[in-house]
Amino acid sequence: MSGNFLALAQPGVQQLSPYVPGKPVDELARELNLDPAKIVKLASNENPLGPSPKVLAAIREELAELTRYPDGNGFALKSLLAESCRVELSQVTLGNGSNDILELVARAYLAPGLNAVFSEHAFAVYPIVTQAVGAEARVIAAKDWGHDLPAMLAAIDAQTRVVFIANPNNPTGTWFGADALNEFLQDVPGHVLVVLDEAYIEYAEGSDLPDGLDFLAAYPNLLVSRTFSKAYGLASLRVGYGLSTAVVADVLNRVRQPFNVNSLALAAACAALKDAEYLEEGRRINESGMQQLQQGFRELGLGWIESKGNFVCVDLAQEAAPVFQGLLREGVIVRPVANYGMPNHLRITIGLPAENSRFLEALAKVLARG
Amino acid sequence: MSGNFLALAQPGVQQLSPYVPGKPVDELARELNLDPAKIVKLASNENPLGPSPKVLAAIREELAELTRYPDGNGFALKSLLAESCRVELSQVTLGNGSNDILELVARAYLAPGLNAVFSEHAFAVYPIVTQAVGAEARVIAAKDWGHDLPAMLAAIDAQTRVVFIANPNNPTGTWFGADALNEFLQDVPGHVLVVLDEAYIEYAEGSDLPDGLDFLAAYPNLLVSRTFSKAYGLASLRVGYGLSTAVVADVLNRVRQPFNVNSLALAAACAALKDAEYLEEGRRINESGMQQLQQGFRELGLGWIESKGNFVCVDLAQEAAPVFQGLLREGVIVRPVANYGMPNHLRITIGLPAENSRFLEALAKVLARG
Repeated sequence: MSGNFLALAQPGVQQLSPYVPGKPVDELARELNLDPAKIVKLASNENPLGPSPKVLAAIREELAELTRYPDGNGFALKSLLAESCRVELSQVTLGNGSNDILELVARAYLAPGLNAVFSEHAFAVYPIVTQAVGAEARVIAAKDWGHDLPAMLAAIDAQTRVVFIANPNNPTGTWFGADALNEFLQDVPGHVLVVLDEAYIEYAEGSDLPDGLDFLAAYPNLLVSRTFSKAYGLASLRVGYGLSTAVVADVLNRVRQPFNVNSLALAAACAALKDAEYLEEGRRINESGMQQLQQGFRELGLGWIESKGNFVCVDLAQEAAPVFQGLLREGVIVRPVANYGMPNHLRITIGLPAENSRFLEALAKVLARG
Repeated sequence: MSGNFLALAQPGVQQLSPYVPGKPVDELARELNLDPAKIVKLASNENPLGPSPKVLAAIREELAELTRYPDGNGFALKSLLAESCRVELSQVTLGNGSNDILELVARAYLAPGLNAVFSEHAFAVYPIVTQAVGAEARVIAAKDWGHDLPAMLAAIDAQTRVVFIANPNNPTGTWFGADALNEFLQDVPGHVLVVLDEAYIEYAEGSDLPDGLDFLAAYPNLLVSRTFSKAYGLASLRVGYGLSTAVVADVLNRVRQPFNVNSLALAAACAALKDAEYLEEGRRINESGMQQLQQGFRELGLGWIESKGNFVCVDLAQEAAPVFQGLLREGVIVRPVANYGMPNHLRITIGLPAENSRFLEALAKVLARG
């Protein structure tokens, strides 16, 4: 007799709903019989600049070694990160995207009977990795779409092992300042690992957002998670990293798959780290694109949530799902956020000026149709 | 007061010893101040042919999309695999290497109080993924270096959820035939998932090894795991896959990270699957290289374990560690297998003819030194 392999799965796993990614261009093209080249995708907070020539050169150079395993220790990339992040090599954990870092934390520190605290409207991967290991997810009501840090603090108990906070937060784009972070870190019990997810921090440079790295030395229970998928433009390759004490990094590195980051990703990330121009141009285009979208929203009489990321949530003041579908038919893919408890919003990634215009025109058309 | 983040880690995680990979060429070059170009690495069962031109072309074509997330559903690759493996799309799980598949199985089906059964001298990742989730590893004594399937069967109890078997096995190269596999599958209780690891199966074509895919329809508790890292030459990129019932695949896909396989890996694997010539040439070079090494061992008066993989374990009839060190000083990297309970053996990956010669000459020199 064959077993029931759904019932045999771990209870947390049985109840998992997989992450819903942004709709791929090819998928929409197949479904609606559209020309992929004419589709605009502003759905996954990808860098609209396209790949950096320096990164492409580094990848091409690495292609000769395609049949070889990656350096499982990621020595070259970790050395560069240690330098640029002002930490020791032993404090760096590399991940197959920062998703991997978040998951490693959950697998190392959470289990049935323990809990993780995070905010409403926060990144969908926090509940997924928490549930996958059978731990309790404590979701704390947001305040003005952002983290309510005092309420999150109050929710921590003896069974809490991890708090996930994101600055800026995805999908809302909200943020908190250095004083709020400092107060929070001072009050969090020492047995709780605070995961500060800074996936979008590079877009916030020059703003009042704190740099998580400045807090690492003072707080041994802090882990800062970052990614090459956004400002560095390497979403396809999957590279993220965690910075923490050497003890936490050692634990995560035990759980980590030995070759979790592929060779081309390692080479590309090394090149990307040195490519200050690309980062700067990405910031510039993001800032002007954010202005362009907000101006468009104003003209359409729509509100939005102020954002420090490379995306913005527009408030349609009505159910967003039909508008999302209407946009798809216009060949524009954005991100519905009803699964984030935001049924009236859509999240728009800042694109190139022409992409932003295409989206705004399509939005006006869809809204006019009613 | 700061917590002790080693003691706070899950008990299984605390006791994990990370996987020890083959020594990278660059690392040896740094340590011994050698020219990397003169180092021969026969340590990680990598394909000695170097990358396939068709694969390189597919990767170059994909580079324009570097800033985009991978297709999280891996539609194109899964479609090709479903066709070539004679299964439905819903039966395929893609992994960041087959390591990822093995880990997904452990995370979905094992937990404290449950156990996994596998053989002595089997792949090091089986105990790692089992221990990482706090399950018991039941290691069954090998027979003539290979799996003792009846003994493994006898070790299964009500708490067993997974059996890992490898055909051929790494690092020993041993194998079992269709009848033995069939008897085993017939007798395994239906609640136990049998993971048949066929990482090296492509090298065994035309031999008496069974094709695991032939057993999928009859045994709903069978999962066949395969990889693009070996015969397909994509170790750097990390692509493996699992084939099972749709129910098991659904469970594994819930646990899987949404973008676990990167875009270049997806594109490369599609091209590799269609490149029958590359596979054929790899088999040819492997067969003649195996002859070359065995002839060399004979001349040195050394025994070996018969192998159906792209590697062979030579029996030095003395402690292998000093010989391994001596080979390193000659610029030749092979794989010590003392951590597999084989202190007198070294595992040698079959290389190109010139690499095999370099190794045999270095081995003769090191052994002559005593």
